[in-house]
Amino acid sequence: MHQLTVLYNHPEDPAAFDKHYRDVHAPLAAKAPGLAGYTVNWCQPGPDGSKPPYHVIATLTWDTEESMKAALRSPEFKAAGADLPNFASAGAQLIFGPTDRVV
Amino acid sequence: MHQLTVLYNHPEDPAAFDKHYRDVHAPLAAKAPGLAGYTVNWCQPGPDGSKPPYHVIATLTWDTEESMKAALRSPEFKAAGADLPNFASAGAQLIFGPTDRVV
Repeated sequence: MHQLTVLYNHPEDPAAFDKHYRDVHAPLAAKAPGLAGYTVNWCQPGPDGSKPPYHVIATLTWDTEESMKAALRSPEFKAAGADLPNFASAGAQLIFGPTDRVV
Repeated sequence: MHQLTVLYNHPEDPAAFDKHYRDVHAPLAAKAPGLAGYTVNWCQPGPDGSKPPYHVIATLTWDTEESMKAALRSPEFKAAGADLPNFASAGAQLIFGPTDRVV
């Protein structure tokens, strides 16, 4: 598998972020060609009560690096990227790489 | 689903980290009770060539928060945690939260 992880910084208005992510951004990103999986993790305080370092972790996977690279070049992916300033002005990091499934 | 994400900082010796992770740590962590999934993402430079912010992203999932919490209390999970100083002295962040599957 090949994976894109998006780490979203804490937004000024979490409720507005969450609504836009669910209603607008996730449906846009889900149109990226060839997606094998796409999950959204809503980060919460850990067992010690500490604030998590990010607000949301999105994980998108493709079967191969080639299919991921093709998706990154697609108009659908670019449309999702163009939506980021509409809700993620606090910033986000995109991380790429191969993924092994252990379980 | 409920998810634990582990973000590993860049180690001093990436080859030693990777070998220990594959040969020792992943088999230990895979013994955590009730795991529904466990993937290991080997972060690489992005399309712009920039160094990724982390070395490895591990993603462990359980079907429910209760099963995750039970796993965190288990001797198997604690054994995996006790292994961290053996390879992850550069540090790691553990992030918890519920996960929605979009695709």
